[in-house]
Amino acid sequence: MAPDVRERVFPAARIARIEEIAEVVGFLSEFDSDASRRVLSEADVLVTGWGAPFIDAAVLDAAPRLTAVLHSAGTIKPFLSDDVLERGIRVSTAASANAVPVAEYTAAMIVLANKKVLPIAARYLALREEFDVEAAFPGMGNYDKRIGIVGASKIGRKVIELLRVYELDVVVYDPYLSEDDAEGLGVEAVGLDELLSTSDVVSVHAPSLPATHGLIDARGIGLMRAGATLLNTARGEIIDQEALTERVLAGELFAILDVSTPWVLAADHPLYGHEHVLLTPHVAGSLGVELGRLADVVHDELQRLVDGRDLAHEVEADRLSITA
Amino acid sequence: MAPDVRERVFPAARIARIEEIAEVVGFLSEFDSDASRRVLSEADVLVTGWGAPFIDAAVLDAAPRLTAVLHSAGTIKPFLSDDVLERGIRVSTAASANAVPVAEYTAAMIVLANKKVLPIAARYLALREEFDVEAAFPGMGNYDKRIGIVGASKIGRKVIELLRVYELDVVVYDPYLSEDDAEGLGVEAVGLDELLSTSDVVSVHAPSLPATHGLIDARGIGLMRAGATLLNTARGEIIDQEALTERVLAGELFAILDVSTPWVLAADHPLYGHEHVLLTPHVAGSLGVELGRLADVVHDELQRLVDGRDLAHEVEADRLSITA
Ligand SMILES: NC(=O)c1ccc[n+]([C@@H]2O[C@H](COP(=O)([O-])OP(=O)(O)OC[C@H]3O[C@@H](n4cnc5c(N)ncnc54)[C@H](O)[C@@H]3O)[C@@H](O)[C@H]2O)c1
Ligand SMILES: NC(=O)c1ccc[n+]([C@@H]2O[C@H](COP(=O)([O-])OP(=O)(O)OC[C@H]3O[C@@H](n4cnc5c(N)ncnc54)[C@H](O)[C@@H]3O)[C@@H](O)[C@H]2O)c1
Repeated sequence: MAPDVRERVFPAARIARIEEIAEVVGFLSEFDSDASRRVLSEADVLVTGWGAPFIDAAVLDAAPRLTAVLHSAGTIKPFLSDDVLERGIRVSTAASANAVPVAEYTAAMIVLANKKVLPIAARYLALREEFDVEAAFPGMGNYDKRIGIVGASKIGRKVIELLRVYELDVVVYDPYLSEDDAEGLGVEAVGLDELLSTSDVVSVHAPSLPATHGLIDARGIGLMRAGATLLNTARGEIIDQEALTERVLAGELFAILDVSTPWVLAADHPLYGHEHVLLTPHVAGSLGVELGRLADVVHDELQRLVDGRDLAHEVEADRLSITA
Repeated sequence: MAPDVRERVFPAARIARIEEIAEVVGFLSEFDSDASRRVLSEADVLVTGWGAPFIDAAVLDAAPRLTAVLHSAGTIKPFLSDDVLERGIRVSTAASANAVPVAEYTAAMIVLANKKVLPIAARYLALREEFDVEAAFPGMGNYDKRIGIVGASKIGRKVIELLRVYELDVVVYDPYLSEDDAEGLGVEAVGLDELLSTSDVVSVHAPSLPATHGLIDARGIGLMRAGATLLNTARGEIIDQEALTERVLAGELFAILDVSTPWVLAADHPLYGHEHVLLTPHVAGSLGVELGRLADVVHDELQRLVDGRDLAHEVEADRLSITA
């Protein structure tokens, strides 16, 4: 992984803990130098992370002892050629652990969105006096509200889990979710149009795939109820941002966006500072102390390998094409 | 209750539902007129709410059939003379239901506070470009963090419940909480100084009583860790606001305040618009559709009376002096 990523995710104290159960033969950020080749030749396990170099057949040839790749971040696809799984090397990813902070951010924002807390705070800051919040934001509050989850992904499922204790009605759209799965999750599976037209908060958790670009297009944005909030922590390209902007500026919709296209909006974009909008710069994922959770998952997986047990988060080859 | 409260909490559709199980003999906002006296003389049950007139011995004398008072809001004390409970009239309050939205607001804000989401959003809005959020807000994130709950009140307990699914360490200060109770809640009971000096978020849920005014005084504010957040949804007078303001302006603390002293801060107060601060105008409690939850609780209690069952939320006389 990139050297700065290594320092953030695996500071010295965590490396020391790993050394209690395994020998650390080297720290690599590329596979091409002679030094790297020497390390590869000795490695049974590679621990990867953000900024890792691509693992292809040539890398595998240089690593004859390799049996497992433990990825300390979410998406592993950019770092992995098909050869890795084809050669029977086991791959584990911390994507489930990385899903936790995104789901936590999302659940918190859903509660605030229903209650219009941040628009109220913005209005209060502007007025600096008492005002009738119920008249200003009709239908505010968390009770008898419907939340629409787009994508029963790792993050989407964790959001559903976090929302279970709230008195909210949760519906899900996901073409890969069976009725049975939905029942198991305790939610109702619905079509995307129904989700968009009946939800008070629409929260996007689909992976970015050709099939999901523009999944919520201008027509879909048009279906959303007046007063509803679009919450996107997935990828900007999944929604029609222009159509969303138009309805926000018309005062009809609210938006909470951790991602956008481009991911930093132009400085004069009208969504900045709008009372109905919260913009965060792609921070829902693991950051700060949350990196410790990723390191802990890798440590646990390593312990499982040492003990000869199954990995807890093994990547299944046949699901790679529909995952983020 | 006040007429506007009645219209908000019990709109026509909810009154119609009540009429399915009981006769509604009148709508009162005072007990003094002849019309009110006539209604009182027929009433078995009074449904009260925000803005209700005081129920004293004279009112009880005018209501010989009265057996129960069902309060559709939180704090009942301002509306009740000791005579009510002394005469054996059963009193129920929707305070537990009213605790729900406050606890939901709090749990959401705790997650955002640990991650510094709102200060990051404010910085992003100011800069409109990428910046190193981890360097700007060291220690950000929800993992291995300590949350200090001041007051194992109805709201405090509900917050503890909501936080159970998070990987956070929760400690509580409450002089009325036994070690056993704390264990039952799955949290550690600690002294106030320890709570203040070790928590990443301090969330205030004590009732406003003479004993709690200035409970978190300048010395207590001084104990809080740099980077910590004070979250207050209880009452402004419980904390030393000046001491808090000083440490916020020094860049040392963060604050999320739904209450303040006075409850609308002067327009030139330095907490307005500060990057480390979110101010909301006393909105954590039941508002908008959440009023439906209060009406539903009263409806359930009425059904219990009709069925001859115990009330679910009966007020205990001996706890009144330590409740909000
Ligand atoms: N904001 C952040 O910091 C952050 C951090 C991590 C992930 N993300 C993003 O969050 C999203 C979800 O990530 P994840 O790891 O939970 O995804 P994932 O890999 O678990 O998603 C795969 C699942 O998505 C569902 N899916 C596939 N195609 C779909 C479609 N056309 N419509 C709806 N659902 C479909 C399927 O159930 C599939 O199993 C991704 O877009 C990811 O990039 C953002
Ligand atoms: N922001 C809002 O919109 C909103 C809405 C409702 C309530 N509130 C406030 O929230 C707070 C909690 O309300 P509640 O209904 O949960 O309270 P409550 O009536 O349940 O509180 C009573 C409990 O507080 C604890 N307590 C008593 N004295 C204490 C002390 N000195 N230090 C610490 N704990 C003590 C005891 O456990 C007692 O049982 C109150 O201040 C209330 O006014 C705010």
